[in-house]
Amino acid sequence: MTDRIPTPTAPAPDIVRCAYLDLVVTDLAASRAFYVDLLGLVVTRESPDAIYLRTFDEFIHHNLVLRPGPVAAVAALAYRVRSPADLDRAVAFHTELGCRIERRPTGFVEGIGDAVRVQDPLGFPVEYFYEVEHVERLSWSYHLHTPGALVRLDHFNQVTPDVPRAAAHLEDLGFRVTEDIEDEAGTVYAAWLRRKPTVHDTAMTGGDGPRLHHLAFATHEKHNIIAICDTMGALRISDRIERGPGRHGVSNAFYLYILDPDGHRVEIYTQDYWTGDPDNPLVTWDVHDNQRRDWWGNPVVPSWYTDASPVLDLDGNPVPLTTRTDTSEMAVTVGADGFSYTRDGDTDQGFKLGNQL
Amino acid sequence: MTDRIPTPTAPAPDIVRCAYLDLVVTDLAASRAFYVDLLGLVVTRESPDAIYLRTFDEFIHHNLVLRPGPVAAVAALAYRVRSPADLDRAVAFHTELGCRIERRPTGFVEGIGDAVRVQDPLGFPVEYFYEVEHVERLSWSYHLHTPGALVRLDHFNQVTPDVPRAAAHLEDLGFRVTEDIEDEAGTVYAAWLRRKPTVHDTAMTGGDGPRLHHLAFATHEKHNIIAICDTMGALRISDRIERGPGRHGVSNAFYLYILDPDGHRVEIYTQDYWTGDPDNPLVTWDVHDNQRRDWWGNPVVPSWYTDASPVLDLDGNPVPLTTRTDTSEMAVTVGADGFSYTRDGDTDQGFKLGNQL
Amino acid sequence: MTDRIPTPTAPAPDIVRCAYLDLVVTDLAASRAFYVDLLGLVVTRESPDAIYLRTFDEFIHHNLVLRPGPVAAVAALAYRVRSPADLDRAVAFHTELGCRIERRPTGFVEGIGDAVRVQDPLGFPVEYFYEVEHVERLSWSYHLHTPGALVRLDHFNQVTPDVPRAAAHLEDLGFRVTEDIEDEAGTVYAAWLRRKPTVHDTAMTGGDGPRLHHLAFATHEKHNIIAICDTMGALRISDRIERGPGRHGVSNAFYLYILDPDGHRVEIYTQDYWTGDPDNPLVTWDVHDNQRRDWWGNPVVPSWYTDASPVLDLDGNPVPLTTRTDTSEMAVTVGADGFSYTRDGDTDQGFKLGNQL
Amino acid sequence: MTDRIPTPTAPAPDIVRCAYLDLVVTDLAASRAFYVDLLGLVVTRESPDAIYLRTFDEFIHHNLVLRPGPVAAVAALAYRVRSPADLDRAVAFHTELGCRIERRPTGFVEGIGDAVRVQDPLGFPVEYFYEVEHVERLSWSYHLHTPGALVRLDHFNQVTPDVPRAAAHLEDLGFRVTEDIEDEAGTVYAAWLRRKPTVHDTAMTGGDGPRLHHLAFATHEKHNIIAICDTMGALRISDRIERGPGRHGVSNAFYLYILDPDGHRVEIYTQDYWTGDPDNPLVTWDVHDNQRRDWWGNPVVPSWYTDASPVLDLDGNPVPLTTRTDTSEMAVTVGADGFSYTRDGDTDQGFKLGNQL
Repeated sequence: MTDRIPTPTAPAPDIVRCAYLDLVVTDLAASRAFYVDLLGLVVTRESPDAIYLRTFDEFIHHNLVLRPGPVAAVAALAYRVRSPADLDRAVAFHTELGCRIERRPTGFVEGIGDAVRVQDPLGFPVEYFYEVEHVERLSWSYHLHTPGALVRLDHFNQVTPDVPRAAAHLEDLGFRVTEDIEDEAGTVYAAWLRRKPTVHDTAMTGGDGPRLHHLAFATHEKHNIIAICDTMGALRISDRIERGPGRHGVSNAFYLYILDPDGHRVEIYTQDYWTGDPDNPLVTWDVHDNQRRDWWGNPVVPSWYTDASPVLDLDGNPVPLTTRTDTSEMAVTVGADGFSYTRDGDTDQGFKLGNQL
Repeated sequence: MTDRIPTPTAPAPDIVRCAYLDLVVTDLAASRAFYVDLLGLVVTRESPDAIYLRTFDEFIHHNLVLRPGPVAAVAALAYRVRSPADLDRAVAFHTELGCRIERRPTGFVEGIGDAVRVQDPLGFPVEYFYEVEHVERLSWSYHLHTPGALVRLDHFNQVTPDVPRAAAHLEDLGFRVTEDIEDEAGTVYAAWLRRKPTVHDTAMTGGDGPRLHHLAFATHEKHNIIAICDTMGALRISDRIERGPGRHGVSNAFYLYILDPDGHRVEIYTQDYWTGDPDNPLVTWDVHDNQRRDWWGNPVVPSWYTDASPVLDLDGNPVPLTTRTDTSEMAVTVGADGFSYTRDGDTDQGFKLGNQL
Repeated sequence: MTDRIPTPTAPAPDIVRCAYLDLVVTDLAASRAFYVDLLGLVVTRESPDAIYLRTFDEFIHHNLVLRPGPVAAVAALAYRVRSPADLDRAVAFHTELGCRIERRPTGFVEGIGDAVRVQDPLGFPVEYFYEVEHVERLSWSYHLHTPGALVRLDHFNQVTPDVPRAAAHLEDLGFRVTEDIEDEAGTVYAAWLRRKPTVHDTAMTGGDGPRLHHLAFATHEKHNIIAICDTMGALRISDRIERGPGRHGVSNAFYLYILDPDGHRVEIYTQDYWTGDPDNPLVTWDVHDNQRRDWWGNPVVPSWYTDASPVLDLDGNPVPLTTRTDTSEMAVTVGADGFSYTRDGDTDQGFKLGNQL
Repeated sequence: MTDRIPTPTAPAPDIVRCAYLDLVVTDLAASRAFYVDLLGLVVTRESPDAIYLRTFDEFIHHNLVLRPGPVAAVAALAYRVRSPADLDRAVAFHTELGCRIERRPTGFVEGIGDAVRVQDPLGFPVEYFYEVEHVERLSWSYHLHTPGALVRLDHFNQVTPDVPRAAAHLEDLGFRVTEDIEDEAGTVYAAWLRRKPTVHDTAMTGGDGPRLHHLAFATHEKHNIIAICDTMGALRISDRIERGPGRHGVSNAFYLYILDPDGHRVEIYTQDYWTGDPDNPLVTWDVHDNQRRDWWGNPVVPSWYTDASPVLDLDGNPVPLTTRTDTSEMAVTVGADGFSYTRDGDTDQGFKLGNQL
């Protein structure tokens, strides 16, 4: 375990919510087919250089930017802050941490005004912005909605080697932990952190990082998620359904994980719970509880533990990975050396399908 | 229109969310049958003096207190504040306004610690509290969930004669208006105000007040609301379904209004949208737009406009009503003198069923 | 009440199910916008003379034919029979009844082979056919499905003056009554009759006839029906939502009634029950039971009782109406002279909204 | 492959539908907890000797009989026939086939009158009955419905070594094949056969038999099935969820497989399609098509292929198994020697999770 990231003396910027992902894809047309034709995201603006997409309930310019590039990777995780002054706070906060910082008064992408990008102490490219172009909120435009309508960007999920270190840093930034996965020895395998009063704006998942584990959009109901699966079957791309649909233990949400043409993972997610009270109780799951990741005990496929998207530094170069030194969740739960139970005290081992193979 | 309520120089308490309603009912057993047996609210505690109920996602002691009394009325609308210090702020804020204030370190009801009750300038009994007993969040206890499971207290809705005056006071308290209903002359018929980032924690509905228009609980999905209707049919109490189910124009939520044994109105509500950005756009509806209250143009029954629950002062006496002097929404939209349209510019008149009677 | 229609000595044709409606519309483009763009029916074939539409689960050529004409009316209610020989049976059966009969070996519309049309003793144009072009069943083609996907033609509903007389004739044709609405004096207001093992292939509704009350399509789930309402709101045609959505007492199905550009009524319907056992119990509803037509007691709008589509004779001329002489369901349930109750024995009067106007 | 079962010269009984399963369980209390407390089946009658259960839409005495016994096994698969005379036909039909036959004028179980049981040529104990006690159809009794309400017995699924031989015999009995799974060499792995106009009343699954693969109940909607999963998670019996939920390729239904305390497999199933036309098109799936059993390509767990319930002969003794000699579906699709594809022509191998282990 590495040293704790220092807590700056400068106040943290007041983050409102996770707002958009700036994503590099290797084939813009293929990605458009996935995000627009399949998932039904709304095109706010597009050119050969970029496609700006939003969800049906969104009123800011975009929740996702797709830009073509040589390496499929994440260019920025962007948070909206409460006021223009929070950008100054973001600069001061990260300056104390010795981060590389870049500020652009006219924004890094279209639709956004003054913005600050930093490479944070965990290695992730993070953007803060307040100024943004307003667009039509299409909540009432039901004639445009698809069976799997995505109504909101819900959260990011990041892979990082040392989860407590990462979580402490995010707490310095004003995030609160809502749930986590631990073992009896105190090893933390993952933590969920929120600014907005849902289970998370981002999660920290233990593994070699910095990488992005996934981006998540919300639907209104569970059948919307099932419709996306059914459509992927109809399009004969069911092999891009990586995991689910299912019910999470953590967050209590109904979920699905699918893979875009570059292998960027997208979660579709619905119905977690209110976490906005200051004393919202932390939910801690035992890593050996077989219902923590899927409430129905369905297996987590190994790729879900191992694969993630690289992230870029502010020059656009992939950030090298740091290896996780703590034990991995996959190792302690899946396969010959793994151990998990349905009922505390049981001696069952492995996950549902793994038992049989 | 009466004078504006002054803005105190003291800072407002930091309200987190609407938290519970303290409700007087005339027959506790009958109310228990409605709220527990029919609606499936969870009993945290009960005695001959009071029943404490909560929703499935709730972790604080209760969202609703039922207490027997001679007059069916509202004893308090309770908000949770961010910290104990906010109680001092609530006292200072309302002292400046000349309100009657009562503070009880051990709370006004069970499960709550230090609490402040005021009769606010609009005449409503309002409670602020921070200290509260934590109870089990039953989100994962699906074996206890009913087909119409209520997962969250969503909002209050108050009747008051002068909506802009009431809304301005709530803005002083830190609320923000998310939607409203106006006419071309600027008369405001209703306004929706939020602290938590949904469409509202409370709404101000124009009419003789102070009265409580309704209390609203949220479900996860639309079929949960339909299940409540179906069950009320099975129990042969469909005459207690007052309005709906339907889709609101305002809030975009799916809704149902039902009446408890005393005529207290309860809304069941699901799927409005995120309003937590500081520049969340205000949605203003034309009072003559026939889709403002029901997106499908189904009629608002007259009782919905006219009936509401009395509220009590801090001594438990009903607060006398002040008459609305602005035109009423019912008068301008329903019946011979009313006018409403489906498409702007149309000359249609009246509501769907009214046209035919 | 007129004389009973004689029972032919010839055996009835073996009807499999209601199969399609041949419908005359006055503006083909407007009807296409309604049935294709709004409702999402699949176009099997189209020309300036006709549009052939089907549901997603259908494998025969069409469930609805739209043809332009000067008078909006029904040209035929078409049933599929079990074998080619059943066409001979249909001819013999209706010959005995003195009906006008026309047989066309190449069909009356595209996609259909040998077919028999009769003007039945009730005045309705009825078609029988076996030969039909098969088309792709699009059940698995989820990429084509809409949020309100229609998966099956469910039933017709016909207006006729003398319901017992009509029902007896349909029983001669092999139909069985599954449910009906009566009063204590034995007046029958409506009857539901089935060949396929659902609640009905057609219903007989008391009124001036012959007219078509409505055509009904099935969805898989209730939210599909709600999606149609939401879309009609978005398109600002909510005034074409005539009644519902709601839960029927009769049939226990979830329903919606909407009006096409010519005023032809379309029901969207889901989840009735199995009726295929030979001793399936008849369900009889009291006409004064306020939950018979809407399980939640929501009002039936007067137009729903009074309006219906004319039908054409085999020459394409509108069939003159015979007036109902029995009391009408609207008269005995709605308004000053009507009477209905939520609980048997109650003395409530009128329907929910009517009480208040 | 063994010889074809002869086609009797006697006409087959007219089977209406699969009606109930007579099931031996080893711990009646444990089974009651599963079928009544968890699944919410309605108890028609119970004693220490037997529990009679039905679904919410059922009007005959039961759909499932649970009887305690030393060996968990199936005592009879019972079909309802159209008339009392069909029992004579059943006797004649099976007499020609040399089957053991037993007829009891007062029935084999409570609630049933005159009934015939045979051990059919495939080794299965099959009952035919017409006389049955009617009970209340609880379709409208929504106050009794659970979140996962089961509304209908949908089908049986039987394991038999030679699928074409079994299917041919069922066709002699009047069944029709709606779908099947084959390979390019013509080996048939499974066939779905119907009397009622759904995809099946029973299916024949290739394997060592006779055994019962599963019994299936229908819900109205997909969320009902998800509610059962969620409840099993809450009860910490998620290890009894064997497979799913998912979307079938075959039948297009949404499904879930769970295991009762004895390992009897129960499917929960919803939304297949109409098959009642005489020329309903057969759907044939390639055994190598990875979407045939799960439209989303999720893996079929090995136990689903290998495990099934023994059946009893008319004396109550387990029927010995005959080994399947054709290749097994598991062998040709799963693991090192298996082969399956998402897109025809692909060279993908194995199923989603198998690829990775």
